[in-house]
Amino acid sequence: MTDADSKSGGLTAAQTAEIENTRANTAATRRATVPELEDILYLPIPVLDHGFVRVIDYMGDDNAVVQAARVSYGTGTKKVREDQGLINYLMRHRHTTPFEMCEIKYHVKLPIFVARQWIRHRTANVNEYSARYSILDNEFYLPAPEHLASQSADNRQGRGAVLEGEEAARVLALLRDDSTRAHDHYLDMLNHDEAGAVLDPARAGLARELARMNLSLNFYTQWYWKTDLHNLMHFLSLRADAHAQYEIRAYAEAMLDTLRHWLPATYSAFMAHRMGGAHLSATALDVVKRLLAGEPVGQPDSGLSKREWRELMAVLDREG
Amino acid sequence: MTDADSKSGGLTAAQTAEIENTRANTAATRRATVPELEDILYLPIPVLDHGFVRVIDYMGDDNAVVQAARVSYGTGTKKVREDQGLINYLMRHRHTTPFEMCEIKYHVKLPIFVARQWIRHRTANVNEYSARYSILDNEFYLPAPEHLASQSADNRQGRGAVLEGEEAARVLALLRDDSTRAHDHYLDMLNHDEAGAVLDPARAGLARELARMNLSLNFYTQWYWKTDLHNLMHFLSLRADAHAQYEIRAYAEAMLDTLRHWLPATYSAFMAHRMGGAHLSATALDVVKRLLAGEPVGQPDSGLSKREWRELMAVLDREG
Amino acid sequence: MTDADSKSGGLTAAQTAEIENTRANTAATRRATVPELEDILYLPIPVLDHGFVRVIDYMGDDNAVVQAARVSYGTGTKKVREDQGLINYLMRHRHTTPFEMCEIKYHVKLPIFVARQWIRHRTANVNEYSARYSILDNEFYLPAPEHLASQSADNRQGRGAVLEGEEAARVLALLRDDSTRAHDHYLDMLNHDEAGAVLDPARAGLARELARMNLSLNFYTQWYWKTDLHNLMHFLSLRADAHAQYEIRAYAEAMLDTLRHWLPATYSAFMAHRMGGAHLSATALDVVKRLLAGEPVGQPDSGLSKREWRELMAVLDREG
Amino acid sequence: MTDADSKSGGLTAAQTAEIENTRANTAATRRATVPELEDILYLPIPVLDHGFVRVIDYMGDDNAVVQAARVSYGTGTKKVREDQGLINYLMRHRHTTPFEMCEIKYHVKLPIFVARQWIRHRTANVNEYSARYSILDNEFYLPAPEHLASQSADNRQGRGAVLEGEEAARVLALLRDDSTRAHDHYLDMLNHDEAGAVLDPARAGLARELARMNLSLNFYTQWYWKTDLHNLMHFLSLRADAHAQYEIRAYAEAMLDTLRHWLPATYSAFMAHRMGGAHLSATALDVVKRLLAGEPVGQPDSGLSKREWRELMAVLDREG
Repeated sequence: MTDADSKSGGLTAAQTAEIENTRANTAATRRATVPELEDILYLPIPVLDHGFVRVIDYMGDDNAVVQAARVSYGTGTKKVREDQGLINYLMRHRHTTPFEMCEIKYHVKLPIFVARQWIRHRTANVNEYSARYSILDNEFYLPAPEHLASQSADNRQGRGAVLEGEEAARVLALLRDDSTRAHDHYLDMLNHDEAGAVLDPARAGLARELARMNLSLNFYTQWYWKTDLHNLMHFLSLRADAHAQYEIRAYAEAMLDTLRHWLPATYSAFMAHRMGGAHLSATALDVVKRLLAGEPVGQPDSGLSKREWRELMAVLDREG
Repeated sequence: MTDADSKSGGLTAAQTAEIENTRANTAATRRATVPELEDILYLPIPVLDHGFVRVIDYMGDDNAVVQAARVSYGTGTKKVREDQGLINYLMRHRHTTPFEMCEIKYHVKLPIFVARQWIRHRTANVNEYSARYSILDNEFYLPAPEHLASQSADNRQGRGAVLEGEEAARVLALLRDDSTRAHDHYLDMLNHDEAGAVLDPARAGLARELARMNLSLNFYTQWYWKTDLHNLMHFLSLRADAHAQYEIRAYAEAMLDTLRHWLPATYSAFMAHRMGGAHLSATALDVVKRLLAGEPVGQPDSGLSKREWRELMAVLDREG
Repeated sequence: MTDADSKSGGLTAAQTAEIENTRANTAATRRATVPELEDILYLPIPVLDHGFVRVIDYMGDDNAVVQAARVSYGTGTKKVREDQGLINYLMRHRHTTPFEMCEIKYHVKLPIFVARQWIRHRTANVNEYSARYSILDNEFYLPAPEHLASQSADNRQGRGAVLEGEEAARVLALLRDDSTRAHDHYLDMLNHDEAGAVLDPARAGLARELARMNLSLNFYTQWYWKTDLHNLMHFLSLRADAHAQYEIRAYAEAMLDTLRHWLPATYSAFMAHRMGGAHLSATALDVVKRLLAGEPVGQPDSGLSKREWRELMAVLDREG
Repeated sequence: MTDADSKSGGLTAAQTAEIENTRANTAATRRATVPELEDILYLPIPVLDHGFVRVIDYMGDDNAVVQAARVSYGTGTKKVREDQGLINYLMRHRHTTPFEMCEIKYHVKLPIFVARQWIRHRTANVNEYSARYSILDNEFYLPAPEHLASQSADNRQGRGAVLEGEEAARVLALLRDDSTRAHDHYLDMLNHDEAGAVLDPARAGLARELARMNLSLNFYTQWYWKTDLHNLMHFLSLRADAHAQYEIRAYAEAMLDTLRHWLPATYSAFMAHRMGGAHLSATALDVVKRLLAGEPVGQPDSGLSKREWRELMAVLDREG
């Protein structure tokens, strides 16, 4: 590949042309088909500065979930429930297996530190670009100014205010300079220039599987990632959540939008029952009941720890 | 549902009509499509006396395997290898992740004792007909005469010669009578007739989740079963093998044929490298090398146990 | 083995003696050890009429969970949090990986229909007694009178009132007679008596892998079942729940008690945050907030379906 | 933590003392115990320049495998087979579930690029040190001179000869300088010195979850990694293999030695049947039979591709 400058949205012109060619081909199928998802099939959704996520293939639609539930529950239920109602019911009661009957495959380009969080979701199929085998492009992530955040003072794994002025400029310069140098030296050790030509015939060149270790965690990699709908929603519930690191959340939000195109009824149930809402412990539920009965309750007589109390008040939008 | 007599190939007339309706619908898709598999999509392949397996949906084709391998290997390999050669290479060297990029979904009707073996393959998605919720039909498996085998004398988990004459007749009569009575009593305990009418208004009827325990392991159940290509091949390599119990092998062989329709290059590599062939231990390999060098080798000086020696001679089609 | 009459708590005298021998042996170990669990190690806890569950082995203690969380979080947190507080926090926020660091292995004897529900929990290791290889004992489950329930009128997969009088007696007689006959005919087809002797030298005997299909789903099987703590709690949260079928719940409750012996801090957090408590959807949470603000809310203006409204009122112990 | 200089074998003096304290404690247990593994429990086995692997906990012994197989196969087999013979049989015929009955937990310190290969083994439990939460030490991997290999000329993902002289010195200097600078700038962006003190009170400091992206892939991380014996052997068969990258192979070889301490019979069967030996395809097996029958066979009439032929000749130690 060539360098990042010749790319648009993380893709080379040749790749963009290949996508357009692929999109121009259609075939007849007897399978369940979702026109709203076909509309965006193969198209890269830009994420971060050089990344993207794009849907490469899918299996099933909302009806596949309903159909699977009805095999479990047998005949006689069709008239009783509407499909949306059934999907809501499944979501609410965590009947997860019918959601496993749909499958989706993405092509994702993402920084290595994001890939390291993402890969922890084990129930998925992955094929990653191999830097043992091929040479990584000179593409690395630099946070946009509004995402260059300071360390949170009260949350050890969170962010605080955005860095500004000189400190922001200094951080960005350090990141850019170190990444650029890392890739320059990577090519140098490989004895290779950007275009793939040997630099110095007298040198052997370091093995690719070793040279890659000089690259930093903000370099981009890419993979095919395939999972079933249940595990996709589990991924999204954790990674599109406000507590997730911004960079992986940016991918999860793009994927949430692909879910909306793909399965509108499931998306609606997911947003109501999983992304929104809250789990209350037995003790927290007891506090709610006492409050509803008009009883004044404070943290000391709630049975909750101070932290649990704060969390409950936040869920209920109440002053502590 | 009605009783088994009104069915053909394990399906009611209404189900057969529904399948034809579904097959009559096609839509345009941008996804990879396999016409040879579309030809048989939704069609039940009869297995055993009342069972079937049918492909309900699929994702990907042979090219999806190649494409996934090439993300791993990056660009620049397309000209070097032919697709079949690459797929053979992946199969031979157990590079399994590219095969995980394809997915297939079956609808299967099968005896419960077969389902109990099948479900041990954990990396799959399953929705089974629930006898807590619905009433099981009066359909049970009876072996065909040529499969009514005696216990093997030398293999504790194998079959010997086919039973004949009076003993065969007696066994079939016992199986048929006990199964028939079990279902009669099942309906009786449910206080239900075949058509779903209450038998005796004065009785409450046993809960479905309890009454089902009276049915024997040869009754038919059904499920949707979805898995990726790698795990499908693992299933087939164990269950289409000659050591598998005949009844599950009958399903595996039907599914092997769906694989042939779906992915010809993968099927060919699978048959050569997984279904055929043999694994030799280090010691067995050493024996082969000594034999090839013209050295006479017998079990005592082979380093192999008697059993291992017998197995090796069988693999090599040699007298022990 | 001999018949059920010679057994106590589902075990033969020889098995009971072997357990006592095993329990008499102790060894020194550097591993984390839990005396309260050692006290009951290997001992069968009776479940249903012939079943049991017993802990065979375990790895880790409450501190292993804390330690794993602290690798994640690194140093410097030890003084800040108490262990119970940290475990509560992990449970509340579904940080599940530290709970995967503990492992437990059970030996379970259970009816086949219970085994069929149980095996749907895929993230576990299982070795089951093979009826292809060995002969199943004449042991089958008959519900105790107080568990012989009628079908629920309003929940298709639930139970209603207990059957009484003549209907109860009739159901029990049918179950007992059919099971007894099934096993008699099973031995007959095998050409085998209870003690293992050949019945008729002139007959070949049906293969074990076929004869077993005549047994009904209430016959007992047994297995080793091993899982990590996270997946154990997932199993318990579903199977010790009031919606689970009584027969599997009886096993789950026995296992819940082994959890209490094993990991008191985790058990306490699990009971508060998983077994008790409730998940509220975004809309349900909004209703709670409106009620807390003193606003009168009824189903029609709640945004909830009638069914969701009924479920919310039940969670809050309120009249609909 | 302090910097790398104060460490020995990748551990601080405080950590070494904590390990000694832990090892000094023993307790009585009724569980299966393996004295040879207890001897090395908790002790770090040095790997690479700053890494280690140490066994933290284990469940089961060789007998647990045998016992699980005998639940499957039932009674009557004890006298027939010796334990080693049974374990060999299970290994040879890929009866994998009995091996899932043992479990082992490691604490590993490893470079991030090794962790990225390792984590692809999905059936395991992992808790990794979090650089969102804590600060990574200034410890990075530099290959020893004998492992500083050039790119292989004929294997795109392999190594060739060792680099020498000026080129070796230059590569090492680049790696060391870039890594050192990356960590210096990491601390600088965090506004932190090595001892944890704030550098400049006027600066906010970049969030830890962002600053870590400046570190390169040779920096060390650490995790707890727990898996069952079957999956451990699968890991070892791939990662202790000659085709694996040297750096992960160094870990696998250290773990192979812990397997030898833990389960001598399983280790012996694993070395004979999995690490040694070879899989022959149906066609390759046919070639062997023809050769054994004295028939001259060459690649053109073998049915094998040139590459397959070369691989077979290598397996058989023959000239092509």
